[in-house]
Amino acid sequence: MNNKYIHEQYEEDEKLKEECGVFGIYDFDGGDVASTIYYGLFALQHRGQESCGIAVSDTNGPKGSVKSHKGMGLVNEVFTPELLEGLKGDIGVGHTRYSTAGSSTRENAQPLVLNYVKGTLGLAHNGNLVNAPELRRELEYTGAIFQTTIDSEVIAYHIARERIHTASVEEAVSRAMNKIKGAYSLIVMSPRKLIGARDPYGFRPLCIGKRDNAYILASETCALDTIGASFVRDVEPGEIVTITPQKGIESDKSHCLPKGQEARCIFEYIYFARPDTHIDGVSVYQSRILSGKFLAIDSPVEADLVVGVPESGNAAALGYSLQSGIPYGTAFVKNGYVGRTFIKPKQSNRESSVRVKLNVLKEAVNGKRVIMIDDSIVRGTTSDRIVRMLREAGAKEVHMRVSSPPFLHPCYFGTDVPAEDQLIAHNRTIEEIRQVIGADSLAYLRTERLGEMIGGMGHCTACFTGDYPIAPPTEDIRGSFEK
Amino acid sequence: MNNKYIHEQYEEDEKLKEECGVFGIYDFDGGDVASTIYYGLFALQHRGQESCGIAVSDTNGPKGSVKSHKGMGLVNEVFTPELLEGLKGDIGVGHTRYSTAGSSTRENAQPLVLNYVKGTLGLAHNGNLVNAPELRRELEYTGAIFQTTIDSEVIAYHIARERIHTASVEEAVSRAMNKIKGAYSLIVMSPRKLIGARDPYGFRPLCIGKRDNAYILASETCALDTIGASFVRDVEPGEIVTITPQKGIESDKSHCLPKGQEARCIFEYIYFARPDTHIDGVSVYQSRILSGKFLAIDSPVEADLVVGVPESGNAAALGYSLQSGIPYGTAFVKNGYVGRTFIKPKQSNRESSVRVKLNVLKEAVNGKRVIMIDDSIVRGTTSDRIVRMLREAGAKEVHMRVSSPPFLHPCYFGTDVPAEDQLIAHNRTIEEIRQVIGADSLAYLRTERLGEMIGGMGHCTACFTGDYPIAPPTEDIRGSFEK
Amino acid sequence: MNNKYIHEQYEEDEKLKEECGVFGIYDFDGGDVASTIYYGLFALQHRGQESCGIAVSDTNGPKGSVKSHKGMGLVNEVFTPELLEGLKGDIGVGHTRYSTAGSSTRENAQPLVLNYVKGTLGLAHNGNLVNAPELRRELEYTGAIFQTTIDSEVIAYHIARERIHTASVEEAVSRAMNKIKGAYSLIVMSPRKLIGARDPYGFRPLCIGKRDNAYILASETCALDTIGASFVRDVEPGEIVTITPQKGIESDKSHCLPKGQEARCIFEYIYFARPDTHIDGVSVYQSRILSGKFLAIDSPVEADLVVGVPESGNAAALGYSLQSGIPYGTAFVKNGYVGRTFIKPKQSNRESSVRVKLNVLKEAVNGKRVIMIDDSIVRGTTSDRIVRMLREAGAKEVHMRVSSPPFLHPCYFGTDVPAEDQLIAHNRTIEEIRQVIGADSLAYLRTERLGEMIGGMGHCTACFTGDYPIAPPTEDIRGSFEK
Amino acid sequence: MNNKYIHEQYEEDEKLKEECGVFGIYDFDGGDVASTIYYGLFALQHRGQESCGIAVSDTNGPKGSVKSHKGMGLVNEVFTPELLEGLKGDIGVGHTRYSTAGSSTRENAQPLVLNYVKGTLGLAHNGNLVNAPELRRELEYTGAIFQTTIDSEVIAYHIARERIHTASVEEAVSRAMNKIKGAYSLIVMSPRKLIGARDPYGFRPLCIGKRDNAYILASETCALDTIGASFVRDVEPGEIVTITPQKGIESDKSHCLPKGQEARCIFEYIYFARPDTHIDGVSVYQSRILSGKFLAIDSPVEADLVVGVPESGNAAALGYSLQSGIPYGTAFVKNGYVGRTFIKPKQSNRESSVRVKLNVLKEAVNGKRVIMIDDSIVRGTTSDRIVRMLREAGAKEVHMRVSSPPFLHPCYFGTDVPAEDQLIAHNRTIEEIRQVIGADSLAYLRTERLGEMIGGMGHCTACFTGDYPIAPPTEDIRGSFEK
Repeated sequence: MNNKYIHEQYEEDEKLKEECGVFGIYDFDGGDVASTIYYGLFALQHRGQESCGIAVSDTNGPKGSVKSHKGMGLVNEVFTPELLEGLKGDIGVGHTRYSTAGSSTRENAQPLVLNYVKGTLGLAHNGNLVNAPELRRELEYTGAIFQTTIDSEVIAYHIARERIHTASVEEAVSRAMNKIKGAYSLIVMSPRKLIGARDPYGFRPLCIGKRDNAYILASETCALDTIGASFVRDVEPGEIVTITPQKGIESDKSHCLPKGQEARCIFEYIYFARPDTHIDGVSVYQSRILSGKFLAIDSPVEADLVVGVPESGNAAALGYSLQSGIPYGTAFVKNGYVGRTFIKPKQSNRESSVRVKLNVLKEAVNGKRVIMIDDSIVRGTTSDRIVRMLREAGAKEVHMRVSSPPFLHPCYFGTDVPAEDQLIAHNRTIEEIRQVIGADSLAYLRTERLGEMIGGMGHCTACFTGDYPIAPPTEDIRGSFEK
Repeated sequence: MNNKYIHEQYEEDEKLKEECGVFGIYDFDGGDVASTIYYGLFALQHRGQESCGIAVSDTNGPKGSVKSHKGMGLVNEVFTPELLEGLKGDIGVGHTRYSTAGSSTRENAQPLVLNYVKGTLGLAHNGNLVNAPELRRELEYTGAIFQTTIDSEVIAYHIARERIHTASVEEAVSRAMNKIKGAYSLIVMSPRKLIGARDPYGFRPLCIGKRDNAYILASETCALDTIGASFVRDVEPGEIVTITPQKGIESDKSHCLPKGQEARCIFEYIYFARPDTHIDGVSVYQSRILSGKFLAIDSPVEADLVVGVPESGNAAALGYSLQSGIPYGTAFVKNGYVGRTFIKPKQSNRESSVRVKLNVLKEAVNGKRVIMIDDSIVRGTTSDRIVRMLREAGAKEVHMRVSSPPFLHPCYFGTDVPAEDQLIAHNRTIEEIRQVIGADSLAYLRTERLGEMIGGMGHCTACFTGDYPIAPPTEDIRGSFEK
Repeated sequence: MNNKYIHEQYEEDEKLKEECGVFGIYDFDGGDVASTIYYGLFALQHRGQESCGIAVSDTNGPKGSVKSHKGMGLVNEVFTPELLEGLKGDIGVGHTRYSTAGSSTRENAQPLVLNYVKGTLGLAHNGNLVNAPELRRELEYTGAIFQTTIDSEVIAYHIARERIHTASVEEAVSRAMNKIKGAYSLIVMSPRKLIGARDPYGFRPLCIGKRDNAYILASETCALDTIGASFVRDVEPGEIVTITPQKGIESDKSHCLPKGQEARCIFEYIYFARPDTHIDGVSVYQSRILSGKFLAIDSPVEADLVVGVPESGNAAALGYSLQSGIPYGTAFVKNGYVGRTFIKPKQSNRESSVRVKLNVLKEAVNGKRVIMIDDSIVRGTTSDRIVRMLREAGAKEVHMRVSSPPFLHPCYFGTDVPAEDQLIAHNRTIEEIRQVIGADSLAYLRTERLGEMIGGMGHCTACFTGDYPIAPPTEDIRGSFEK
Repeated sequence: MNNKYIHEQYEEDEKLKEECGVFGIYDFDGGDVASTIYYGLFALQHRGQESCGIAVSDTNGPKGSVKSHKGMGLVNEVFTPELLEGLKGDIGVGHTRYSTAGSSTRENAQPLVLNYVKGTLGLAHNGNLVNAPELRRELEYTGAIFQTTIDSEVIAYHIARERIHTASVEEAVSRAMNKIKGAYSLIVMSPRKLIGARDPYGFRPLCIGKRDNAYILASETCALDTIGASFVRDVEPGEIVTITPQKGIESDKSHCLPKGQEARCIFEYIYFARPDTHIDGVSVYQSRILSGKFLAIDSPVEADLVVGVPESGNAAALGYSLQSGIPYGTAFVKNGYVGRTFIKPKQSNRESSVRVKLNVLKEAVNGKRVIMIDDSIVRGTTSDRIVRMLREAGAKEVHMRVSSPPFLHPCYFGTDVPAEDQLIAHNRTIEEIRQVIGADSLAYLRTERLGEMIGGMGHCTACFTGDYPIAPPTEDIRGSFEK
């Protein structure tokens, strides 16, 4: 027996990656907000696990006295009680990050904190600009210097420059939005205001909450639940909200598009967002249940058991079961202790990696015809392996159903996708994919179902159809400032 | 708004604690075993999260050249690739620990490594002795010195002393077993042998596996699956197995009790063990499904939905659903990033702590009569809160079912139980408990069902009945050497 | 006995603090330079112990591929072999920092790395600008954003803005020098050039070295010795040197002042610089020997022994001994293990702190008349204590001589000085100071001797005389951007 | 230019290594002693830098409630204020360790804390037993188990076993001393007593101090000065002192040898001990001054300057200067930031390593005939390099004088010496050594001078003469338990 393992950092490489989670709060009663931001980020941890940060300010102190802490790692790795104690202030922003544009270094962690003509700004941003390289170049030609490789710095510059000639920071944000193109949900903390903005297409979510006398902005409503805040409403696509003790929430909707032209990222519903979140009035959980029901309607199959690939396939599996009447069950046990620094078995047997993370409950599947539901197939390596695990555990048949359409095109709006030729659906028919993963049958959710799934709201299907709501950048935007 | 949080270490205080997981391997082909132990411990992480360790030895090297590393924390925190590389050897033992006897310090981490008359021993032990204090005192009166406060050191001394007058280390283990009383699953690594032993009552599990030309001993079969080994058989209660290249597995059953007199810990099935593990031939998952079915038979109620309290209540909920025909669903979202070092909200609102860890899916429960199943109720604080969360989410009725009998008495065999007066079932009727937690109805699993649940095998019910298979110690054994 | 200690971070509060050390290298043969920078910074560690950093670039790679690492702490704490290996590049800059302007946070660590119109710049800077606040405000009014609170970012902006309209980066540096006022020794790494510049007054040192086919810029010549490079020459006050493989060293002296108008910081010779360094042709060691000789000539006293307060008083003590003929000796033993994180005895007996760091050799001083030489007295607390220690050890007389004039005025050029009213010489005559510290006699170096000490070169005496070579800023420049 | 450095841990390989420093305190007034031990260990850091530890006990608490903390590294790396706060107790022992016997692992760190028949003991030990292997084997044959590879565990066992049949712990120590042979200075903390013992030969130092109502035991008097305690007396070779509030200091001298038969380690005076320490009434500083004077008398040479190799050669250089009238000077600058984790230049040019640590003051030596004094030459590599550095700096002649005789034989009493064939004096005449190191002349201290140096007291010269006071062990004692 030779040693079958290598020691690498473990990476969940079979899933799409989200870019970021943002959180902001302004306590009109002057209470410290850092620990609330901590819990808020904690609820948004699934949106980004590479780095995180908190910046707070005291609105009653001198202008610009921002305190911040950022670091690589999870929220509970980066922050200690002592650090939170030190972050005194009644207004603040927080950020969890997974890097799509801008490399994974501490310099690129957010929130961005900067001094400009009107004091100090804190900036947290979720999304990707498609015209960042052009904007950078323009700025550099007028003397700008850049210390990070993230789009947020480009946004910050535009706000700073517009601020010189405008009456307020929210107006500067509005003017900046005339120039920046792409996906962004943005929270800006100025010395006396908390501002939220969402790009006109509404790619990424952003919502407003309230607790006692404090207003909150957050990527997802689950963060409101976690801190005990009530949901007020979503920030609309294209809307800018300005939160002050004097006027509460003010709204600027001059950038909003006509209803239906929005391009909400459908993967927020399918996979990224937490199931207990609502985005633009639609329950993420319910949309997943629906996707399972549609699969049962559109791609029925006789079977004894419906199971989800944990965790993200479970809701769709439940939907499939409810619609089809085939019993729902649990087929897998997931090892909850697999962390980011897990030492990985050797490449040669990638299978082992799956077995370390996931094991099958033989009793549950032995002798049965199993329908297995996952939210997506990216490279296909995991699906292949899981199908085999089910067969080894005695499943008589394995039918795979996927609660999204086949994934074919790159995303420029904040989702990290492997190169096209690494996608299993690239240049393959469904039947060919079925053969690769070794299932008895395979079906994907139909693209037409996506709109139904989220109540008919405008959404982006570019990754399935190649039909981009904004023209993709002419140069590859990822990493372009790092050469 | 005043700050609602304090910064403490988070602790899952509503669950019983298991003591330890043990793992041993001997590769007859001479391959290095450290990384295999690493993955094995990883699969046993749920049995102990306070400290862990690995000790290996080269059977072809000079006697006694044991290399070991131990530390406080999870397996993937304590070990790095470099450390694993340094642990060269073809025989080894590993341990994950949660402290019941012996305080939580690095000194008390296992495996214990020691030099004695015949070379070097490695020792990993799961369980609690009831006569450890007496044995310690006896040993001290003959000149022994103790450097830890764990029972394992007492066992080690007995093996070392018996070894002087016996022909083999397994015989020394056998003689030591005449003196030590209580619960133990033990793995001993001597320079050329791997030995496993289980106390006559079989309180804690221990099984044998095989991969290629290597034999494995492990607390649970899930560890065998994880490393790709096949299950050979369980070590029987009272059995000593000796593994050598010369003779394979040799067995000594002189300590075994007559069938039926064993006292397997029923909580291994109910909560401790991983669902994909089999103990003494019985599937843990299946026994949980069964417990749910029994609840449906013994304590039926009309409802629209059956949900489990994650993770441990899910299997019993599925069983209840299968038996009753009431649809199974998911009501909770658990934050998977709550780690051991999570900063905890203030005591004053312990509720927030639950909300940070757990959120309700309103869509799933709104307007419904819900049956909620958990594996046990210890203090009752969490149950109370979860019932309230369900109601706030719109549940019309909440019926709680518990897949174990009411917990009333302390355990001396390796389970950490709060003081009697902290147990919710202490001095309360079921109806009184129902009122405390605020459910519409409440029912526990009947004690008689426990035997049925595990195929009629001998088991311990002392924590429910006070009927102890071995007389409890006259002095409190926990922490007694630390005063 | 009550506990006499508190646990604080230890700080050498009796000494003036230097701001920074800078180091740059360009290897025309294309070899990696990171480890050479590491050793160079190591030799400049005494100039700054709060943070340090290295940035390198590959001149043959794409423009702007700078790799950098910065951190809080000493060079050997911040860098690991793995980090150095990762810093591939043949041109680079390094920095050790003690904060005078800009608070002590990781964000403020240098070198500054930034993208601008012509690619990527690395910037390392020693000194303090007197007009930084004005320049910042000006920049902000034209849309600049600042992400640090260090002067270097102001310099970087000016270079970046000038670069748009100039033919070369060195010309941009030259134009920037028309605007920035104060003390600076600057190293700039552009994609294909290494540039060094020194302010017209030459407050801080900067020298050029060569090893094989690599050119080096460094704050002190001791860094050249450490890496085995030979000394080429000093960068002159006001000079800009541009180092390229094509043209070697090019010089721009357009900012130089007439000889004698320079304002070299005299404390570089007295205390800051390492004794094995030469600055502008003068040996630091020799200047200290000279200061001791002058003290012996100007302030003689009969005694049996001359001792230095370690380490910085030793050279002057040797000079005093050589001139006076009174034997030189060692009176103190210093504990070499006092690090930055030493836990400090309680305030109530600050004396103990001195005793932990310093002990007296009773045999050496018992029964003797001792002349004790230190380089400066700032607050006087340490001198007071050391005089007492000598008396307790049996010294019959203690005569203190100080190798610099009394310190009376703040410095705006890169030295961190306590508030005026904390200076012992503030509002006290020499006789009064003598009484405070309890010496039998006390004498300072005469201000006129300072020029003699360094061969008659132009130097700054502002901290003794209040005669500032550049008008001090109207607002306090320290920390002004942090409010 | 290729990269000239490798990245290894730096090690001061040219010096002999001391084994340990010990410290104990008993505060009769009941004050906490942990922070005092911390400062004491801090003053003894030079005796051991690999690991350290503190164990304390509350004499008014229940018997055996010892709290301890140990770790790898320096005192200020291992202890934090929080850790010290947690170590509550009025009696305690501390230890700094450099490993000679027993490998360098955390398990081997001291003090040893153990439970035995009479409660809990803390044990700190400096020295090496010559019969440890035999004693271990004997103990194992009667059932002992060993968890470390340090001699101290052997001593602990003997004390524990003797204690069963004796009236007091000090009597048990006395009986144990009948069995253990070799070098040891020992501090034992029992629940109500602090005991110090020194082997009959007095190889290693141990002294008694007093502060307020607390008694202290320490390896060196400098630790007493550091904590503000007064020196009471030395523990005599062979003496056992027992410290209790009831009787103060009690003494047992039954193991003492006749005056003159002691074998104090002469290297304690030459190099190990701090110069401000007195051992058995003799000032270490004064003995070094004397050694320099003897060198000037016995091996005079015409020269312009006497310099010491820092730090340990300085006192002897001063002595040489005083005796000869040749001026004393400083020739070297040492980089005080070289820590244990310094990244080392490549083997190929070990010279660079010296230059990083040490630089020459050219001004001081240029054109001069220099006498350079070091305390010893072990391998000779550093001497060779330093002589060359002096010549490169312009020294006309370099005469080396060594303040100890040539080092030729291994030490079994607590000093770590390289293998014989690595010693430069092995199989070489003085003239041959001179040629290797390239000096113009070379002389060592004469062996006869050693006695004179320390006032005629009994001392060990085995490393120079091979004349061992106790027969060396028949098997190599170093590392023998680790195979």
